[in-house]
Amino acid sequence: MPLAVLERAQRDMLDWNGSGASVMEQSHRGKRFGELAAQTEADLRQLMAIPDDYAVLFLQGGATQHFAQIPMNLAAADGSADYLITGHWGEKAASEAAPYVRVNVAASSKAQNYLRMPPREEWQLDPNAAYVHYTSNETIHGVEYHDIPDVGDVPLVADMSSNILSEPIDVSRFGLIYAGAQKNIGPAGFVVMVMRRDLLQRATRPMARILRYAEHAAAGSMLNTPNTWGWYITGLTLQWLKEQGGLAAMAERNRVKAETLYRAIDGSGGYYRNPVDVAARSRMNVPFTLHDSTLDAVFLQESEAAGLMALKGHKALGGMRASLYNAVPPEAVEALTGFMQDFAKRHG
Amino acid sequence: MPLAVLERAQRDMLDWNGSGASVMEQSHRGKRFGELAAQTEADLRQLMAIPDDYAVLFLQGGATQHFAQIPMNLAAADGSADYLITGHWGEKAASEAAPYVRVNVAASSKAQNYLRMPPREEWQLDPNAAYVHYTSNETIHGVEYHDIPDVGDVPLVADMSSNILSEPIDVSRFGLIYAGAQKNIGPAGFVVMVMRRDLLQRATRPMARILRYAEHAAAGSMLNTPNTWGWYITGLTLQWLKEQGGLAAMAERNRVKAETLYRAIDGSGGYYRNPVDVAARSRMNVPFTLHDSTLDAVFLQESEAAGLMALKGHKALGGMRASLYNAVPPEAVEALTGFMQDFAKRHG
Repeated sequence: MPLAVLERAQRDMLDWNGSGASVMEQSHRGKRFGELAAQTEADLRQLMAIPDDYAVLFLQGGATQHFAQIPMNLAAADGSADYLITGHWGEKAASEAAPYVRVNVAASSKAQNYLRMPPREEWQLDPNAAYVHYTSNETIHGVEYHDIPDVGDVPLVADMSSNILSEPIDVSRFGLIYAGAQKNIGPAGFVVMVMRRDLLQRATRPMARILRYAEHAAAGSMLNTPNTWGWYITGLTLQWLKEQGGLAAMAERNRVKAETLYRAIDGSGGYYRNPVDVAARSRMNVPFTLHDSTLDAVFLQESEAAGLMALKGHKALGGMRASLYNAVPPEAVEALTGFMQDFAKRHG
Repeated sequence: MPLAVLERAQRDMLDWNGSGASVMEQSHRGKRFGELAAQTEADLRQLMAIPDDYAVLFLQGGATQHFAQIPMNLAAADGSADYLITGHWGEKAASEAAPYVRVNVAASSKAQNYLRMPPREEWQLDPNAAYVHYTSNETIHGVEYHDIPDVGDVPLVADMSSNILSEPIDVSRFGLIYAGAQKNIGPAGFVVMVMRRDLLQRATRPMARILRYAEHAAAGSMLNTPNTWGWYITGLTLQWLKEQGGLAAMAERNRVKAETLYRAIDGSGGYYRNPVDVAARSRMNVPFTLHDSTLDAVFLQESEAAGLMALKGHKALGGMRASLYNAVPPEAVEALTGFMQDFAKRHG
C-alpha cells in the first residue's frame, strides 16, 4: 500500500475528519461517512471514466464470494455462462459458479499449463450464454490479457482483482467488472464492482435481498453496514492515484516496472527464467525460477535480508514471484533486479 | 471502540509486529498473520469459555448475509426453522431466510410493538424444526433476552451482534452464535461465529464452497483472503477485554451502566420515558423519549455540543437512543445522566 495512505490513516486514527473519533466508530448512515462514500465513488468514476449507465458497488466477501453471487444475479436458474480459463482463479470462478449456472468452458489453456492465452479462433462461445467470464490477470500463473476479449453482444464479466486501476480501460466494453481490493487497491475484505445498470434486473431466481446486486445498488452499497474501514482506505488510495496522475500515469509506471524485471530475467542467460509466452506475460505478477532450484531457499533468505519482501512463489508453482502492483515504487523493482544480478554473480 | 485499541492500531500502522509493514500488507498465509489469527481464536475461546466441540469462524458479510447463509447451511431445502421475533433484526433475519427455508414464526411481540418478550407459554415451537433462531438483543427496540431460551433439543441459533461479549454465557446451550463485529467488538465487515461442530455437516443442498461453513472451518477461516484488518482489530479488542478482567467484569460494568441510565429515566418524573417492559429492557441499547418531542432537536444539539455523541434514535422509533456497548466507559454514562438532569431543569 502507498506509504502516504498509511501515514494518513495513522494520523486520522483517533480523530478522523474533525469527528473526534476513528472512522471505524462513525455511523455509516452519518453525514461524515456519507461524504466519504460519495467522494470515493466519484473518484473511482473519474479515474476509470465510468459511464453513467454503470452502477458502482462497494461490497464484501472477496472476489470468491462473487464467483458464486454473479451467476445468481446474472443468469436464470436454467441458464448457462461461458468461462475463459487462463489460470487458477479462472478455474475457481467456474467451480464456484457451477451450483448456480451451467458452466461452459469456452476456452482454457490448462493443457498448456496456463503458459499462454487460448487462441481466439479456438474459443467456443455460445451466443445464448448469460455472460462470458474471464480473469483479466492471473495472480499465480502470471498471465494477463492485454486486450479486452471480443465476445460480441454477450455481457463480458471480468475479475480484475489483481490489475484493476493499473491502466485505463474502456468500461463500456464490459457488463460487469469486479475486484477484491486486497491486491491493487488495499484492504482485504472489500470488493469494488462496476455493473451495467440494465444487468441489475437480471436476477429472477428466489434469493435473499442481501445477495442481490440490485438491492445493494438501490441502497447506495449500504444495504447493511459496509466495511467502513475498507471503504475509507480505498478512498485514500484513489486520492493517491489521482495525485500520481491517474491511470495513464500508473500504466506507464507499471509498464516500465514490468519491462525492467522481465529484461533482468530474460537477460540473465538462463540464470532466471519466466516460462510464460511473452504475449501473455503479466505486468502485475512475475513468476520466475532459478536455474538451480536448490538455490531457492538461499535466494529467499538473502532477498528478505536485503529488504525485498514476499518473493516466495505460490505453492502451486514453486520458485519466486514478484508482484508489481500500483503501490510498488519503481525503485523497489530496481532494487530487486540489482539484487538478482548480484545474486547471480555471487552464486554463479 | 476502546481508546487503548485505537492507540495501538495507530502505533502499529507503519510497522506491525516488527514486520516493517502494515498489518494490511501482510499475507494472510504468512507466519506473522497466522500467529495473530490463532491468538485471536484462543482469546475468544478463553473469554467465552467455548467448548472444544465448537468451531470458531471469522467471516465477512455482516450478520445480514448470515441471515441468508445460516438456513442454507443448517436446513434441508425442504426443511423448516422456527423464528422468535422481538424486534427489527429478528424480522429481517426471518425475511432473508425465507428463500432458503420454510420460516415458522414461533413467537412474535410485533403486536405489542416489541415492548415486551412474547411469553414462553405462547411459543409455537416445532420439535422437527432445523433450528430455532432468535436475536439476543434488539438494537433498535432496546429489548434483550436475560435468559437463554429453552427450546429443547432443537439447535438454538443466536444473532448476538449487539450483546456478544457483554457477559459470560453458557455456549453449550447453543447450536450457533454469530455476531457482526461492528457493535460490541469493533470493526464493521467482520463476523464472529461459534458453531457446534456436528452442525457443520448439515449442509446438503448444492451450493458454492465459499458459502459453506464447513469449508471455512476446514480452512481455518482462510478459505479466501479474510478481512485481515477486522481480524487484527478484533484481536486487540479481545486482549483489552482480558485486561479488563474478562466477561464477568464487563457484565458487572455493563449492569451498573444500564442501571444508572434507567434510574435517571425512571426517576425523571416522566420527563424522560423508556417504554420497554422492565423485564425485557436491554443493557446495551436504551431508547428513550422526552415528554415533549418538540424538544428533541434541542436535546440532540445540546448533547452533541456537550460531547455526547450519537444519541439520535433510529428513524423507526424516533426520540433518543443511548448505546452502552463494552467500549463505553461508566464515566460517559454519568456524563449523559448528568446532562439529562441539567437539561430537564433548564427546559422544564
